[in-house]
Amino acid sequence: MAKKTMKQGAKRGTGQAAKGRRAAQPKPGLLAAQLTKIAREFHGRGWALGTSGNYSAVLNANPLRLLITSSGLDKSALTERDFLEIDGAGNILAGKGKPSAETFLHLAVAGKREVGCILHTHSVWSTLLSERFASQGELCISGYEMLKGLQGVRTHEHRERVPIFANAQEIPALANKISNGLGRENQTHGFLLSGHGLYTWGVDVAQARRHVEIFEFLLEVIGRREFGGAPVTEKQ
Amino acid sequence: MAKKTMKQGAKRGTGQAAKGRRAAQPKPGLLAAQLTKIAREFHGRGWALGTSGNYSAVLNANPLRLLITSSGLDKSALTERDFLEIDGAGNILAGKGKPSAETFLHLAVAGKREVGCILHTHSVWSTLLSERFASQGELCISGYEMLKGLQGVRTHEHRERVPIFANAQEIPALANKISNGLGRENQTHGFLLSGHGLYTWGVDVAQARRHVEIFEFLLEVIGRREFGGAPVTEKQ
Amino acid sequence: MAKKTMKQGAKRGTGQAAKGRRAAQPKPGLLAAQLTKIAREFHGRGWALGTSGNYSAVLNANPLRLLITSSGLDKSALTERDFLEIDGAGNILAGKGKPSAETFLHLAVAGKREVGCILHTHSVWSTLLSERFASQGELCISGYEMLKGLQGVRTHEHRERVPIFANAQEIPALANKISNGLGRENQTHGFLLSGHGLYTWGVDVAQARRHVEIFEFLLEVIGRREFGGAPVTEKQ
Amino acid sequence: MAKKTMKQGAKRGTGQAAKGRRAAQPKPGLLAAQLTKIAREFHGRGWALGTSGNYSAVLNANPLRLLITSSGLDKSALTERDFLEIDGAGNILAGKGKPSAETFLHLAVAGKREVGCILHTHSVWSTLLSERFASQGELCISGYEMLKGLQGVRTHEHRERVPIFANAQEIPALANKISNGLGRENQTHGFLLSGHGLYTWGVDVAQARRHVEIFEFLLEVIGRREFGGAPVTEKQ
Repeated sequence: MAKKTMKQGAKRGTGQAAKGRRAAQPKPGLLAAQLTKIAREFHGRGWALGTSGNYSAVLNANPLRLLITSSGLDKSALTERDFLEIDGAGNILAGKGKPSAETFLHLAVAGKREVGCILHTHSVWSTLLSERFASQGELCISGYEMLKGLQGVRTHEHRERVPIFANAQEIPALANKISNGLGRENQTHGFLLSGHGLYTWGVDVAQARRHVEIFEFLLEVIGRREFGGAPVTEKQ
Repeated sequence: MAKKTMKQGAKRGTGQAAKGRRAAQPKPGLLAAQLTKIAREFHGRGWALGTSGNYSAVLNANPLRLLITSSGLDKSALTERDFLEIDGAGNILAGKGKPSAETFLHLAVAGKREVGCILHTHSVWSTLLSERFASQGELCISGYEMLKGLQGVRTHEHRERVPIFANAQEIPALANKISNGLGRENQTHGFLLSGHGLYTWGVDVAQARRHVEIFEFLLEVIGRREFGGAPVTEKQ
Repeated sequence: MAKKTMKQGAKRGTGQAAKGRRAAQPKPGLLAAQLTKIAREFHGRGWALGTSGNYSAVLNANPLRLLITSSGLDKSALTERDFLEIDGAGNILAGKGKPSAETFLHLAVAGKREVGCILHTHSVWSTLLSERFASQGELCISGYEMLKGLQGVRTHEHRERVPIFANAQEIPALANKISNGLGRENQTHGFLLSGHGLYTWGVDVAQARRHVEIFEFLLEVIGRREFGGAPVTEKQ
Repeated sequence: MAKKTMKQGAKRGTGQAAKGRRAAQPKPGLLAAQLTKIAREFHGRGWALGTSGNYSAVLNANPLRLLITSSGLDKSALTERDFLEIDGAGNILAGKGKPSAETFLHLAVAGKREVGCILHTHSVWSTLLSERFASQGELCISGYEMLKGLQGVRTHEHRERVPIFANAQEIPALANKISNGLGRENQTHGFLLSGHGLYTWGVDVAQARRHVEIFEFLLEVIGRREFGGAPVTEKQ
């Protein structure tokens, strides 16, 4: 299992971590350590307070094996033991605790994209903008140099379409909706759940983390513009 | 006394700290250490600057015994020795210093709710929103996933009613008003004092701390929406 | 000299530092260490970036002896050796470097008030509000519990009048203006220079630091209200 | 080479680092260490997230030798080995990795100004204001005491004209435009690229860093004013 993933990692190796050195073999322990560090960092930056946020890493693509945070834990105190290994149907293969209901959203992303890591955050700006643009079903971002921090984007003229799905507590239905939505969007780097937060991903943990940072920056820029007297239509 | 509280803690044990392990016996020294850590953290996050903020933990429910911060201390430099043990009438049982006048608000909450910890903060957003919505006597929050961080809330469709009481310096009268107000609100997780700040609580210190974090997040979201050109009535 | 100051400190001892223990003798070395710590803290909080900000402590009241930061130093890298001892006319008694032109504003305050420490900061909100209210010559703050963090204030109904002086590079004339202005304001805890920043003070370093924190909080509250679509006239 | 630079540094020595001691000889290793520290600091302050930002220091003025960050690295994890030495045409003289396309903008600045260090950041406020004022081709800042933190500015009445260039991915053409623009602006301390960020510089690393801090402060002040209901025309 680990060997297959390593090869796949090497093929995909376009993330930050992969530059200039061979991609590290994604051992569960190492990935749990990386995700724990990210959980504490994101808590400190206000992107996943209280028990909000879930973080996962792909241990194997086919059949799908995912390492994911257990449900209901305070992210400021997460440890490397607070992760589960699950299969593509959400069954627990290893670890204590229970998976979050949102695990199925991670599985939906992992089933549609060649990803190594999926990060879900709840920032103030993602909450505000996902709510304000919910009726349009999307937020489009264009004209910012920072867009080039998203994998494969080469110019600020890129138009990043961020789908917005209505929030729901019936996760399997929502997972289907997202799976269908993502199937038609090959260039998508993330999506928003209305009044809830952001999902983004990357080929490895470092790239996914960078995508959170890039999106949070762009959402803050648009949020301050949008909630600061300047109509967003001026820009787009 | 400690034994009773432990049992009670076990019965109530739905807070973060209680998950996956037996609730720790609430020894005054340990609670003072936890509250001191919180005081410094909240100061660093701008939620209780200068001498503002009071923090308490229930040592015994019946008869009521409360551990509470002494009055007038700078919260950035609080130590574990800056706490008092008081009874349900506010008499000092142990510790140096004098209790804050607001001690009676803590007693009012502890007398009405099954709580292990009560935290009072003064953030910018709680100040702004408590002032703006004072004439309505409440702030209602609905539609945000983050609401699920409040104990017992299962859906973002939950409507959290946060009562707002007019600020006053005659604390006993205010305490009566709050006690009566809370008596009619079984689902309330906190309240605001106009132009002053937030009171929230939990079954233990970890849950109360998480409630502060959840409320501060929600107040920032609503504050940025409300002070950013979008009418709050659109949402509610 | 040190002895006199100690007695005076004991008489005045209503600051945070004086509570629960005898006021420490204000030795220059200790005061320089305290002010250095504050300089780094305030830089980290964005209240005195670059070379902005000056900090002083009274070594002796009569004749006046002031310990004050040298001019033109980056406050993120201030050390305990970057202070001067000056007399009431601004002459250097000890230390290397040259005094800032604004030293005369510190002397104006120290000559009019019973103070042990004077702190001058340049935050975003003090800059914005001092500019917006410059034509009124004052900013009045009322209705906030946090006002009680200012020495001697007992109720949120207190009306704190913060004088605003036009900024100027001819410091002696400005110092006269401030000296005259403060002479008529016994209850003033600080003043603003338009487009420039805040001056506040206290009986000792701890109290002055707390006053900065309280003012910065109140200015942020009013700033967000004022620059967020809500007319300030509603409140006052 | 190092000797020439030291002399030149001594002649120019008006930066913070040069005060009170002889300017340090700009060894590549020391400069890389200083720029690495700045990269991590600026990442932490939100001024250069993800892979954004480039930092350079002049190793020799004539012929031009520049030490500059390699392209595409995450600035939160930059190390002292992530720098290249290049000549005035952008050829690599030492180091691994490839230069960023924006290297030519650094060369354009270094060719026009007597500088020792050039820093490029991407903050929220520089992004927002460079976009809003793009059609005017400049942002003018006047009336703020903090302007005195820019080298050579003696009064808040100074009018700092910050040119704004349209963002472009064809860097050589943009570099020419900037080079021509800077040629006519002897008093300029920095410029903006629309929707992109800030370039500023100084005689040494410390002064350039201070200029970033000063500009970021001023941009936040103007940004909050501009996106907070107050027309910028009131001020200017």
